[in-house]
Amino acid sequence: MTLRIGIIGCGGIGQEHARRLHFKLAGAQVVAINDINLAAATQFSEMSGIQARVLDSHQAVIDAPDVDALVVASWGPAHEEQVLACIKAGKPVFCEKPLAVTAEGARRIVDAEVQAGKKLVQVGFMRRYDAGYRALKATLDAGTVGDALLVHAAHRNPAVPEMYVGDMSITDTFIHEIDVFRWLLNDDYVSVQVIEGRKTRNAHAGLHDPITVLLETRQGIRIDTEIYVACRFGYDIQCHVVGETGVASLPEPMSVPLRSNARQGSGILMDWKLRFIDSYDVELQDWIEATVRGEVNGPDAWDGYVASVTAEACIEARKTKQILPIALPERPAFYARQG
Amino acid sequence: MTLRIGIIGCGGIGQEHARRLHFKLAGAQVVAINDINLAAATQFSEMSGIQARVLDSHQAVIDAPDVDALVVASWGPAHEEQVLACIKAGKPVFCEKPLAVTAEGARRIVDAEVQAGKKLVQVGFMRRYDAGYRALKATLDAGTVGDALLVHAAHRNPAVPEMYVGDMSITDTFIHEIDVFRWLLNDDYVSVQVIEGRKTRNAHAGLHDPITVLLETRQGIRIDTEIYVACRFGYDIQCHVVGETGVASLPEPMSVPLRSNARQGSGILMDWKLRFIDSYDVELQDWIEATVRGEVNGPDAWDGYVASVTAEACIEARKTKQILPIALPERPAFYARQG
Amino acid sequence: MTLRIGIIGCGGIGQEHARRLHFKLAGAQVVAINDINLAAATQFSEMSGIQARVLDSHQAVIDAPDVDALVVASWGPAHEEQVLACIKAGKPVFCEKPLAVTAEGARRIVDAEVQAGKKLVQVGFMRRYDAGYRALKATLDAGTVGDALLVHAAHRNPAVPEMYVGDMSITDTFIHEIDVFRWLLNDDYVSVQVIEGRKTRNAHAGLHDPITVLLETRQGIRIDTEIYVACRFGYDIQCHVVGETGVASLPEPMSVPLRSNARQGSGILMDWKLRFIDSYDVELQDWIEATVRGEVNGPDAWDGYVASVTAEACIEARKTKQILPIALPERPAFYARQG
Amino acid sequence: MTLRIGIIGCGGIGQEHARRLHFKLAGAQVVAINDINLAAATQFSEMSGIQARVLDSHQAVIDAPDVDALVVASWGPAHEEQVLACIKAGKPVFCEKPLAVTAEGARRIVDAEVQAGKKLVQVGFMRRYDAGYRALKATLDAGTVGDALLVHAAHRNPAVPEMYVGDMSITDTFIHEIDVFRWLLNDDYVSVQVIEGRKTRNAHAGLHDPITVLLETRQGIRIDTEIYVACRFGYDIQCHVVGETGVASLPEPMSVPLRSNARQGSGILMDWKLRFIDSYDVELQDWIEATVRGEVNGPDAWDGYVASVTAEACIEARKTKQILPIALPERPAFYARQG
Ligand SMILES: [Mg+2]
Ligand SMILES: [Mg+2]
Ligand SMILES: [Mg+2]
Ligand SMILES: [Mg+2]
Repeated sequence: MTLRIGIIGCGGIGQEHARRLHFKLAGAQVVAINDINLAAATQFSEMSGIQARVLDSHQAVIDAPDVDALVVASWGPAHEEQVLACIKAGKPVFCEKPLAVTAEGARRIVDAEVQAGKKLVQVGFMRRYDAGYRALKATLDAGTVGDALLVHAAHRNPAVPEMYVGDMSITDTFIHEIDVFRWLLNDDYVSVQVIEGRKTRNAHAGLHDPITVLLETRQGIRIDTEIYVACRFGYDIQCHVVGETGVASLPEPMSVPLRSNARQGSGILMDWKLRFIDSYDVELQDWIEATVRGEVNGPDAWDGYVASVTAEACIEARKTKQILPIALPERPAFYARQG
Repeated sequence: MTLRIGIIGCGGIGQEHARRLHFKLAGAQVVAINDINLAAATQFSEMSGIQARVLDSHQAVIDAPDVDALVVASWGPAHEEQVLACIKAGKPVFCEKPLAVTAEGARRIVDAEVQAGKKLVQVGFMRRYDAGYRALKATLDAGTVGDALLVHAAHRNPAVPEMYVGDMSITDTFIHEIDVFRWLLNDDYVSVQVIEGRKTRNAHAGLHDPITVLLETRQGIRIDTEIYVACRFGYDIQCHVVGETGVASLPEPMSVPLRSNARQGSGILMDWKLRFIDSYDVELQDWIEATVRGEVNGPDAWDGYVASVTAEACIEARKTKQILPIALPERPAFYARQG
Repeated sequence: MTLRIGIIGCGGIGQEHARRLHFKLAGAQVVAINDINLAAATQFSEMSGIQARVLDSHQAVIDAPDVDALVVASWGPAHEEQVLACIKAGKPVFCEKPLAVTAEGARRIVDAEVQAGKKLVQVGFMRRYDAGYRALKATLDAGTVGDALLVHAAHRNPAVPEMYVGDMSITDTFIHEIDVFRWLLNDDYVSVQVIEGRKTRNAHAGLHDPITVLLETRQGIRIDTEIYVACRFGYDIQCHVVGETGVASLPEPMSVPLRSNARQGSGILMDWKLRFIDSYDVELQDWIEATVRGEVNGPDAWDGYVASVTAEACIEARKTKQILPIALPERPAFYARQG
Repeated sequence: MTLRIGIIGCGGIGQEHARRLHFKLAGAQVVAINDINLAAATQFSEMSGIQARVLDSHQAVIDAPDVDALVVASWGPAHEEQVLACIKAGKPVFCEKPLAVTAEGARRIVDAEVQAGKKLVQVGFMRRYDAGYRALKATLDAGTVGDALLVHAAHRNPAVPEMYVGDMSITDTFIHEIDVFRWLLNDDYVSVQVIEGRKTRNAHAGLHDPITVLLETRQGIRIDTEIYVACRFGYDIQCHVVGETGVASLPEPMSVPLRSNARQGSGILMDWKLRFIDSYDVELQDWIEATVRGEVNGPDAWDGYVASVTAEACIEARKTKQILPIALPERPAFYARQG
């Protein structure tokens, strides 16, 4: 059975997902597309060779009888309304980050989905599908280093554009760690502290960089993450989990070991797009197959909601320079953690 | 367009390729199957969910009008006849190693294909599709270490079964290096020497292990390869290319870095099946797409023939303990190297 | 010229230093020894072959006319009085950690030395003499990674005895980081926070382990150090300095790379005594030579005092769970930092 | 007791050894010096602060009653006569490589020493004192990788001067591997083959570079060594010992791990002088102490002789392009291998 997909939003990531689903992955084809820029959607549909119907509203795509499932890749502020419409139509939806631009908005999606009585929503946290994080999680789950006690992490970019300012370190960058550590540790956060230390001269005026975020989990695990988006030297994602009997780390991306020019070593990626590109394939292939089976087994609406709540707490903690509690309602049984 | 495939030979690798083509990769479906054990073929076709027609001869599969292309995964001695039949039928064929069990047999395939006037045959040398070797080749092609002068390589298995004896170190093991180094270096071999040194106590009686093979290329590059199939510690493939300004190496497979039990480091695979498993997907996806375009851009019949000639020279050099020339006819223009 | 040395305190470290100075290093001999256990001192002097005079008080050793310089290796609470006596006698003294058991005591030594008008005191912070830290400092000083912004560090022991409790994580363990980071960064501390997270089951009842200490420097550099003394897997000292253009790390101790048992990697020390054993030689050889020249160029009384003040602040911060300022008087010109 | 030393030959290495023995190491002082350039010897003696007597012949130094032991650091062709004179005088002598410029000459030294009835000669093969090789040997001796079967080695220099030509790859470069592998493996050589492959454009006209030397030992261990002295990228010494259950390797020299400029890794030395500089200290300190005890426990005259015989066989094998036997007389009981 081939899953027939409607794409809402045809910007960069929407186009990439459309091509991936239609040409590269097995078991799916893109049949309908919408974008606020209809001309661009039409051009993409033709130039790409996908040749899907271009419909004049996201609702039209959702309602199309031959659309089995939706991909929401519009800009963030539109996500809430579009995902709610998918839920209302009873159709599975894969929504790119963020699920909604406020925790309240994400909560409304959670409530609607619970109301509807069926899990339909998956959020695009692709790191859970990265081979490295998966290997690390398998190592932790196997008890190889005992129970986790501490996590030392870093999220480094060589540089960010001028439009990247203020709390985007949290909402655009750290949001990935917020989700992936919950999954990696099977845990939730209870408090947060944000430290702004010495600022690099390489960060532009609107940005305090680097910063450090300290998270505490229900189990008492302490996570420190360096967020450093003007580090110059590479796109460099680090994660070291200190357990009762050892330390397990996220593998480095594959790179050819070189001995040359009085140095030995290997390359660090400069382009963030390459770091998790393979995980998009795994994520969407998994989504196709789960959707065909009528399941959601990736990050769900609850995960999207928790990420929003946590990000808002991070921003508040940064502003107040206090250690702040992260107040989460109990996880509904509807969203019971799987394995 | 979906490529409709006939599978000839439904043992281990045949079944794996059938599932891969039918379920995992895009653009192909398996429509017909044959095996000398028809009952097994039928059972596989049903149990796997592929539900292809089971035909009672390889020729029937080749001749089936809805079969666009063939995969030959029978036992080695059957390959020559089956591939020749595909050529005769004018249908593209992907043939697992070896192309034929003798260099003469491989030569007959080359001659038949040239006669037919169209490249149809691809040989299953999957290492060319391994991400690590590809990254290494890209590094060499970019001139990062200058022209290659020397290659130091190793092919290590933890253990081999009792039925693995005599020259299987060459024909079953080293055959992969024979092909991949030609591709990596854009070169051919001119001489070979085989050294049997101190034998490990862990090799069974019928096997001298380890051995070292020394190859010389047209360009004068010297390649030494340790073949050590009872090394106990892991399936370990090493390749270090020494160039005019540096050394570039094959990356290690991804593994979680661990600090535990007074040691730091990462894992080495024990199961050879895992080492190149991803490259089968890349190889066959690439074959599907090239076949649909009417091309062969992987290892071709000439490559299969050269591998056979080289393997036979290795065996003779081992027997005679001499440095032997490898006499290859000129590469026909028909098989001109691409890029 | 041979430096004639008096040893005060002949326990483990006193004996090691005596043998090192007398037999292994150039330019020094041990001529007089005292210990509160005179019999033990006598036995050591004879058995070791040093055959120094055993005198019945530390004062007698200090006053001996043929003693050019002193080594204080008694237990901590005796250090202050003994070092003060050396200053009074105008003789150079090398004092093992701690300089005094309180910051006040260390301050009295500083005041006495300033009063005496001549630097005489060196404190036994041997990490400054470790080849790895020296290479790291050279890298930082060369500007290779730009100005330091963050330091991520860890001090891990496989296990500690039952008598190791409470704040010994600070006073016995972290004290080394306190000194070495000031030296590494040419900086001083302005605030501290201590975090007690999830406790390992492998720590005994009297010990909360691991803990994390966050230090802030005058320049705004943020240092996080994991102190984890029941980590089981090894004595493992980590230091990663994040700068404006890169990250420089403390090298791992030399260890034979091994591929065996499905793993590749190298060893981690289990015995802390081995980690910095070479640095004791370098430290004392340097001390001998500087002392002969009439100089003190290692960690001085001011460094010992600052370490005490910082350690006390760490302990208070741990108790109060607050971010506490570290209030240091201005560094006297007498103790001006050298290069 | 202080060992009183006479230095014969005050060029670069002679001066270094003189300073090392006199100032840096314990238990030795330099009391007499000779060089064919007496003025230079006088100048060195004064400028260095050693202020030893400058005598007008090597024989005068050997005969000086206050000289307990000799260091021969003159040019190679003078070694044989000078070492023989030391033996005749019954005085211990440390002779820099080579022991003699021909195997015959080395043999005369062996014969003279056996005749004299007392081991007096040590040869300056300093690699045996390198911490890395020692750790590797300890690993092998502990049986960590089982019995050695193969050794893969490399000796790489960034560049060599124009005067480095012809067989200096063997006599000046590979000579170190010849000695150190015998010691590492407790073995001797029985055959050799030399392969000249593709030549780097970076080698000057008088030099074929790189070359590969294949040695076979009595135990059947096969050793391949790449000798590549115009490799450009660094002074890089590699040694990987493949055993029955694993591979143990020579550790890389300590270097600060760096992440910068899109690369991670560490430095490779460019200056060969730095690679084994610490081993000179260990070597000579050990020699001082053994000499005081009346022993020779470093590489002895037999080792020097075997190195010469092996080097001559390498040169002949290179010339003839044959696999040549290495014919060694039985090791005299006088030179029985110690542990
Ligand atoms: Mg598709
Ligand atoms: Mg398919
Ligand atoms: Mg001494
Ligand atoms: Mg000396």
